[in-house]
Formats: sequence, C-alpha cells, structure tokens
Amino acid sequence: MPQHSGSHLYGLILAGGRGTRFWPRSRRANAKQVLNFFGERSLIQQTVDRLKAVIPPEQIWVLTNDHLRAEIVKQLPEVPKVQIIAEPAQRNTAPAITLAAEIIQAQDKDAVMGVFPSDHVIGKPREYSKLLRPAFKSARQGSIVVLGIAPRWAETGYGYIEFPKNAPAGAVPITRFREKPDAKTAAKFVAAGNFYWNAGMFFFRTSVLLDAMRTFQPKTAGLLASLPKFGSRGFSSKLQETFPQCENISIDYAVLERAKNVVGLAAGDIGWNDVGSWNAVHELHQRDPRGNNVRGLTLIEDSDGNYVDAGGKLVALLGVKDLIIVDTPDALLIAGRSRAQEVGDLVKRLEKEGRHHLL
Amino acid sequence: MPQHSGSHLYGLILAGGRGTRFWPRSRRANAKQVLNFFGERSLIQQTVDRLKAVIPPEQIWVLTNDHLRAEIVKQLPEVPKVQIIAEPAQRNTAPAITLAAEIIQAQDKDAVMGVFPSDHVIGKPREYSKLLRPAFKSARQGSIVVLGIAPRWAETGYGYIEFPKNAPAGAVPITRFREKPDAKTAAKFVAAGNFYWNAGMFFFRTSVLLDAMRTFQPKTAGLLASLPKFGSRGFSSKLQETFPQCENISIDYAVLERAKNVVGLAAGDIGWNDVGSWNAVHELHQRDPRGNNVRGLTLIEDSDGNYVDAGGKLVALLGVKDLIIVDTPDALLIAGRSRAQEVGDLVKRLEKEGRHHLL
Repeated sequence: MPQHSGSHLYGLILAGGRGTRFWPRSRRANAKQVLNFFGERSLIQQTVDRLKAVIPPEQIWVLTNDHLRAEIVKQLPEVPKVQIIAEPAQRNTAPAITLAAEIIQAQDKDAVMGVFPSDHVIGKPREYSKLLRPAFKSARQGSIVVLGIAPRWAETGYGYIEFPKNAPAGAVPITRFREKPDAKTAAKFVAAGNFYWNAGMFFFRTSVLLDAMRTFQPKTAGLLASLPKFGSRGFSSKLQETFPQCENISIDYAVLERAKNVVGLAAGDIGWNDVGSWNAVHELHQRDPRGNNVRGLTLIEDSDGNYVDAGGKLVALLGVKDLIIVDTPDALLIAGRSRAQEVGDLVKRLEKEGRHHLL
Repeated sequence: MPQHSGSHLYGLILAGGRGTRFWPRSRRANAKQVLNFFGERSLIQQTVDRLKAVIPPEQIWVLTNDHLRAEIVKQLPEVPKVQIIAEPAQRNTAPAITLAAEIIQAQDKDAVMGVFPSDHVIGKPREYSKLLRPAFKSARQGSIVVLGIAPRWAETGYGYIEFPKNAPAGAVPITRFREKPDAKTAAKFVAAGNFYWNAGMFFFRTSVLLDAMRTFQPKTAGLLASLPKFGSRGFSSKLQETFPQCENISIDYAVLERAKNVVGLAAGDIGWNDVGSWNAVHELHQRDPRGNNVRGLTLIEDSDGNYVDAGGKLVALLGVKDLIIVDTPDALLIAGRSRAQEVGDLVKRLEKEGRHHLL
C-alpha cells in the first residue's frame, strides 16, 4: 500500500557525515548538521524547512548513523521517525541513495526523488525553491538532474560541472564533471562562464536510479534489492548484515559520471555555501567593524578578525588577531583562521591517541 | 601577657592585594597570593614556608581583606587564625604595618618584625633564608633594614635602592630610593653596580617603626595607638571605625624615604621575581622546545611561545603564537603575551560595566 500523499516527490537528506572540522563543537553525537551556527535552527532543520516548500514532510527521508539518529529524530518532529534511518556502516553515498530508492520505489512506483546534503547553507531560500520544481519536472521525464551553482569566486574546494558553451536556460545535457581544480584551473573555469559548482544535489525517478545502479554497480544494486519489505519483521537485521557488504563508492563515481541521461540545471546565485570550516562560518556571519564575530559575552580590546564561540562564558580578547576560538565544557580550540581546514586533522590525532571521549 | 615563644622575631605578611593582572584566574576571593602558579603550594603558602626557617609560625601575622581572609585561613593552618586580620579598608601599607606593629609591640616590647609581600616567588629559598638572620640582627640594633636584590636585567617595573659606591658587605646606610626608572636609566643603574631592586621587604623593631610613624605620620600613628587591646571585646568595632580614617600612604613614602636610620642589605641572586603578569608566569615555567607552557591536557600543532592554563580541559592549539590563554568556568582570556600588563585594565572595564560576578 503506497503511503504517499498524492505527490510523487520525495526528498532524501544525507546526514551521515561527522564534520570533524567543526570540532570541538561538533562531536559524534552532535555533528555539523545538527548544530545551529546560524540562527536558532540547525543546518538539517534549515534543510527540511527549505524542502517543505515543495516536498510534503512525510515524504522526506533521512539517512544518518547510529550516533546521530536520536538527535535528528528530536530535531525533525515533522519527519516520520521510521524514515530516519541509521546506516549500519559508512559506505559513501551510492549505497545510501540506492537503499532509500529501493524503499521508496516499493511504496510508489512513480516516485521522483531529490537528494540533498544536510549541512550546507542557502542564503536565498526563495530563489532556491524556484529551482526545485523544474529540477523535479526534468527528473520525472527520465533524466538524472544535477544542480549547478554559478560560481562566485575561483574556489578550489568544490567540484565543478561543465555545461555546454552557450547552453539555453533549463536542464541541458552536461559536458562533464570536473574534480576540485587547482587555483589556476579554477580561475579559468570561472572566467569561461560555463562551469558551475557541484553542490551535491541530484534528482531522479527512483526507477531510473535503480536501473542505473543495476547497470553500473550490479553487486550493490543486487544486495539492496534482496532486502525484505521495509517495515517487515526481518528488514532491520537483514540490513545490518547486507549493508556492510555494499561497495564503498560515491553516487558521483558510481552513476553520475557514467550515465548518459545526466542533465544539468544551472542556478544563479542562491547564496549556497557548503560551510567547509570555521573560517566559512566566520565569513558567513555579521562582524563588528574590526572583523570580530562573537557568539556570547565579550570584552574586546584592540583585536581584529576573530571568531569566538564560547556558549554563555565571557571571552576577553586583548591584542589578538585572526583567531578561531571555540570553547566547550571539555575542550577548547584556539586556531589561526588560515589553519581552519586543518581542524579535522586534530580530530584524527585525538582518535589515534585514543581520547575517544573528546570525539 | 606576651604570647611569644622566646624568639622576638615576627613576620608580617601583606596579603591585601587583588592581582587583577591574573584575571580570570584571580578573583576577589581568589587573588594572586592564594593561587598556585608554581607547584602545589600557593604564593602565600610558599612565603610562610620560607619564613618558617627563621620565624616561628605562631609569630607570623597576615593582613588581608574581607574577600580573602577565609581562603588564607584555610591555606595557612599553622598561623593562628586570630593573627590573620582583614583590614576594614584599603589604606596602602603604612597603616597596615603600623597596626601590626602596635599589636605586636603590646605583646612583646622587644619584638623585631619583618614585612613580606605575599605574592612573590623566590627561586633560591636557601640563599634567601641566609639573608634573614643578618637582616633581623641589624634591625634588632635599631636600624630600619631594606633588602636590595642584585638586578639581573634592566627592569623598568621595579623601584631601585641606591647603595653607596664600593660599600662593604652587610647592612650599610643607603644613599636613596629611586622610583621605577625608564629603560635608559634602568640600564645605567644596572651598569653602575650599586643599584639594587627594592623587593618590598623591610625589618625593624616595632618600637622603632612606631617612633618613626609618630614623627612622620602623627595622625595615623595616633589613631592606631588609640585602639583597645588586641583581643579585647571592643577591639574589632573600634578598628572598623578607626582604620578608614588613617592616611592612605605607603610605608615607603611615610617612613623609609624620610627616616635617617634606614640601612640596606644587599642580596645576590636569590631568584626573586614579583610575578607581575601572566608573561612572568610563562617565563618562570619550564617550556617545551617551542616555548609553550601548558597546565593540563593539550594537543599542539605548529604553535610557539604560548602559555595555557585551563584546568582539566583539553586545549588544542593550531598555528598560534605568543598567546596567553587562561580558561575558567565563567571567563576565558586570550591575550597577546606582549599585552600581559594590560590584563588589569580589562578588569577595570568589567568593574565599570558592572559585571561584578566576574571580578
């Protein structure tokens, strides 16, 4: 019996990441996507808020991990609890998306699904929601649709999608995907005008995605097709057994870069940002005239360009510059802003040193 | 009835200071002198430990304030509780020393008293204790003795005592006191060889000090001479009334710079340091090969010259240099090491802004 509400549009939010670059605020059970860097809603709550404009919340699914599931269930009361699923193992995006597609396809053979990261920000949600309908429409017609974001600077940390030169508006077959470029190549991409940031948002009929997986990743496709009906008595234990056997591969490598029916939908500036580090959080916030951004009480003397996140504690800055300062009850980070990308490496060191209570 | 133990040597420890430059670790009820920057004993405990070599602990007196008295009583179980007195008001050193001299003189007319700061360190306590006997001896003979410390660098933050050129060893009449010099003058002092740091340690017969006070500060001397017997029923309330009427003046201005019978006793290097700021604490500690000093757990990556005091919390440093980082449950300080002297100004700002719970 299909449970859908008449709409055939489904959303899958991928929320299994750890976001270690946001340590010590982010922890296994409090990863980046459930933190509220911006306003009162967490990044995953903001993701659902945006999708609700187009997708009924009871047709939103979330894939996450065991550490995070309880917190996400708490944060997303409008999403049915059974649809917030903990992956039994980390197997990258292809198995996760295929699992969701299998379950949804069984309930609604006409399902069209969008896949969304849970830990990005979109500064212009209205512009964004205007893109969702054409994206779903093109997907309903059988394409695999990828969203391309007009680049605002020559970012080397994102992948790019190459569109045909002088492509018309709307969904068009893409030329190819491009890996994260070096600075020189990134500058060329931006100057050329037909390269767009790959924001990790995809749209497809679940039947189309499952076909593609059967073609390109028959092992993983077969394993997940063999699961009992979702919600049945045997589902959960069989998933625990089967999922870890799936190939550890991204949907990009598994399907998007190989399928023939991939189209791109170019978006203008929707204020998208993947919030890759504390430095990005600092840049996305309002700052005082000397470039300091502070959450909480402070006493600032002759200090510039600092980001401070310290809960309710008073933080006094005296003659310091371009620091990231993040205080939690059991760990305090002081980092140069230019070193924000390396915070994840600190977490690796903690892991190696066996300080698991701080992870 | 005199309570002394046969020895006529008494110690007065001045412990009324706030040490605001050690905020946020130092607070009104936890000032610098009761903190343990070095080892397990606080600065005032180390002061008593040093004096015990020469002065019976039951002949040690402490003057402090209401905020600190309870903590000092707890920290100094060997000092009789009644001898740890809270001054009813801050009136600088002359009234405090005169008060103690009055009380002790009434109990022992042959008393010889040494006055000691409570918040300094002495790195070579054995060398130091060798100085105490000649200092007391010269004081017993009627002089007011000041200790001079051979300068180890051209410090501008200390006062100096000018000795006669080519003075013999032992106590000699001093030429004069010199205020904190500028850098050029300090360099000259050190080069000259007959200038010594004034460490704020004085020795005198209580009768001699009281005579001098009567001569130079008759108002304050008279007020304090009029108090009822120490320990009697009326003493405490009369002290509350009288002490605030005393002149607000240091013993240096009131007596030392004016009396004729002042002699200096020159000490070599006794490892004396007045621990004037967090930077001094940093310099007095052992540091790792990159100049970091850390109390507690850390994770340090590419960072140099930092001082970290954060209780039991893990502190992660990533690409930061020459910072003072002091974390407490309700306040966190991040300051450039070169700005350590200005920490006291932050406390003034807090006071001005009415954030009294952080003082």
